[in-house]
Amino acid sequence: MSIITLTTDFGLKDHFVGALKGKIISAYQEVTIIDVSHEIDLFNIFEASYCIAAAYKSFPKGTVHLIGVDSERSENTQHIAMQWDDHYFICADNGILSALTQKKVAQKIVAINIHDRLHSDATDMDVFTTVACHIARGGLLNVIGKEIKELKPINEFIATVSDDGKTIKGSVIYIDHFGNCVTNISKRLFTEIALGRNFEIRFHNKKITTLHNQYSDFKTSERFTLKSFEGSSLALFNENGYLEIAVYKSISKTVSSAHTLLGLKFRDTITIQFKN
Amino acid sequence: MSIITLTTDFGLKDHFVGALKGKIISAYQEVTIIDVSHEIDLFNIFEASYCIAAAYKSFPKGTVHLIGVDSERSENTQHIAMQWDDHYFICADNGILSALTQKKVAQKIVAINIHDRLHSDATDMDVFTTVACHIARGGLLNVIGKEIKELKPINEFIATVSDDGKTIKGSVIYIDHFGNCVTNISKRLFTEIALGRNFEIRFHNKKITTLHNQYSDFKTSERFTLKSFEGSSLALFNENGYLEIAVYKSISKTVSSAHTLLGLKFRDTITIQFKN
Amino acid sequence: MSIITLTTDFGLKDHFVGALKGKIISAYQEVTIIDVSHEIDLFNIFEASYCIAAAYKSFPKGTVHLIGVDSERSENTQHIAMQWDDHYFICADNGILSALTQKKVAQKIVAINIHDRLHSDATDMDVFTTVACHIARGGLLNVIGKEIKELKPINEFIATVSDDGKTIKGSVIYIDHFGNCVTNISKRLFTEIALGRNFEIRFHNKKITTLHNQYSDFKTSERFTLKSFEGSSLALFNENGYLEIAVYKSISKTVSSAHTLLGLKFRDTITIQFKN
Repeated sequence: MSIITLTTDFGLKDHFVGALKGKIISAYQEVTIIDVSHEIDLFNIFEASYCIAAAYKSFPKGTVHLIGVDSERSENTQHIAMQWDDHYFICADNGILSALTQKKVAQKIVAINIHDRLHSDATDMDVFTTVACHIARGGLLNVIGKEIKELKPINEFIATVSDDGKTIKGSVIYIDHFGNCVTNISKRLFTEIALGRNFEIRFHNKKITTLHNQYSDFKTSERFTLKSFEGSSLALFNENGYLEIAVYKSISKTVSSAHTLLGLKFRDTITIQFKN
Repeated sequence: MSIITLTTDFGLKDHFVGALKGKIISAYQEVTIIDVSHEIDLFNIFEASYCIAAAYKSFPKGTVHLIGVDSERSENTQHIAMQWDDHYFICADNGILSALTQKKVAQKIVAINIHDRLHSDATDMDVFTTVACHIARGGLLNVIGKEIKELKPINEFIATVSDDGKTIKGSVIYIDHFGNCVTNISKRLFTEIALGRNFEIRFHNKKITTLHNQYSDFKTSERFTLKSFEGSSLALFNENGYLEIAVYKSISKTVSSAHTLLGLKFRDTITIQFKN
Repeated sequence: MSIITLTTDFGLKDHFVGALKGKIISAYQEVTIIDVSHEIDLFNIFEASYCIAAAYKSFPKGTVHLIGVDSERSENTQHIAMQWDDHYFICADNGILSALTQKKVAQKIVAINIHDRLHSDATDMDVFTTVACHIARGGLLNVIGKEIKELKPINEFIATVSDDGKTIKGSVIYIDHFGNCVTNISKRLFTEIALGRNFEIRFHNKKITTLHNQYSDFKTSERFTLKSFEGSSLALFNENGYLEIAVYKSISKTVSSAHTLLGLKFRDTITIQFKN
């Protein structure tokens, strides 16, 4: 079985997603198409990168991930296909894949060069569809592109460690449906720097000094049942391995999500201060 | 063919739904996955229950319905799998299935006990996925859980009949995309109590004295065409067998849905008063 | 392989879409179901028509397109099935298909007459599902309906040419997720009337005098890179062959889409004035 996943900023109202699926199924009847998201903020490469990073590992190796965010080809931006961590990614070289691959080298990257072989009205999605179906059928990357060594680098949104090793500084990179605030501080970086020391997670004028293993991980008693902790803020490393500031049983549409209750926004700074 | 349906409050922006599907398809390639809803209000077990109640009968017997709303396991809440009306349901024992099964006894319920068999980072959705694929492949409930006799009861949101049999009192339990207000008063209860008597359906300071068979079921004439009834309020038993207060050709985004025009909200009381 | 696409105004929160898919898969296990849109504005036949017109060509010939917008059958409105451009469409005869087929005669149209053969509680979607699966299996239109010659005509929203051939007058018929404003002026009509003359596209107190081939089609230089054109308005014929007023890299949620920046709304007039 071959799988193609879709991550776009096309929204769900227009015909765009349906038409894209129609093109894929026309080209490759037996493929299984699965939506990751079509609600990425318009042209937001950081959201796109976070979503695909968080989703791809749940799919079988060999899955093809088509990413249609900010994908218009221009003089500065090539279309690329990449094999990485035994999955395939098709995207414009606009920073999405650079953000994804920070820690691990790609197995192969090609600049797609089939544009001249398609009909003259071919859209970016026609190109991506053709490439996705080619790969999903087991085709080689070299057939549809010319190997390149590097992605266009991305410098924003990388968590940094102070020279004295006492501080990690990161940012909110994604706010989810529940109003939880995901940062770019990975569990790996935290563990490497923490070395068992105590710490304070600081943002705005608030701090958190413990990490939860799961959202409901409160010390309950007869007097303080789990229900009494609803609305409490907490920090944990989420499924995707990133530090998340959350509110227990937050209801983002009303008033009590981390996003609204703690006043955190996309790009806000989160600092972890280690003791001695 | 095996089918797994999904009903969650995960929303469609984040990677959650895509990742869940990736896990299912990784575990069971041939399964067909169909979305019921991912827009259930956060942690709203009444909405979840109404949605799955309204949807499940449209699927073939044997379909597995995975419900990811308020599904974190805690000391007070087990994960359960249930065979009921020849369908399978996987959920936390948080009231969703109690609300669903009010009138009909379950064929079998098990408290899921496979948590220790999964890897230590396994999430609630890893558990539900494993169970769903097991059942979808024809596996037995006893292999993945220990039989229990009762669901955690739910006491809210049950329509009641007055001692003199002259009144049914219910509540608005769901407001749909069209702004129609669904109550918890079933056609079955109504028929049993009405015994052919006249009645008034009352809410706020309004009343309705007839039931429509379908939305457009108005008495038209040359003078009053169907178009002249647009915006009229009406009551009917919907496809799902529940009393619904609606507005003909309502446009919920503007001003004229039942929800906005009649001022009805989630949890509001609806009374049916029978004559003599 | 047989494909059924779905275009509705049912929204994604309620059980409606899930239940519809359940009915289809119950009736025809092997069919592939693909969503075009479930977010059509309620009862908006123009949006429905635009969406399906824009999507259908991306699917293989023989695909069955089920359109559930304003689909209640009434004394004035029949359920119809149509073969057109080698695709099949199932819809109420409410103007959606008239708008779609303006330029090209249908291969066959039938008024669906199977209602009496279904159970008495059958809904409009039960009828559409039965017909869709019949056609998807290769069944004939005559088996499920009686041939008719004409669709109910639609007079609104047709672009017109002035008697002197100097002006085309059209309207905004759709505003997409990116805030781009699609008009009902087709490339075909434009080319036929333009005959190479210069022109001004006028709306409100603005004008545009060139057509882009793609969104990023600006004359760049060292001084004016592509980035400097973000937020510029432009006109182009979109993938679907209709004139679109757009803003380069518009972000509709903020302030700079064509829809918000240029103040264009659904039904607004767009005029193309040709020189001499």
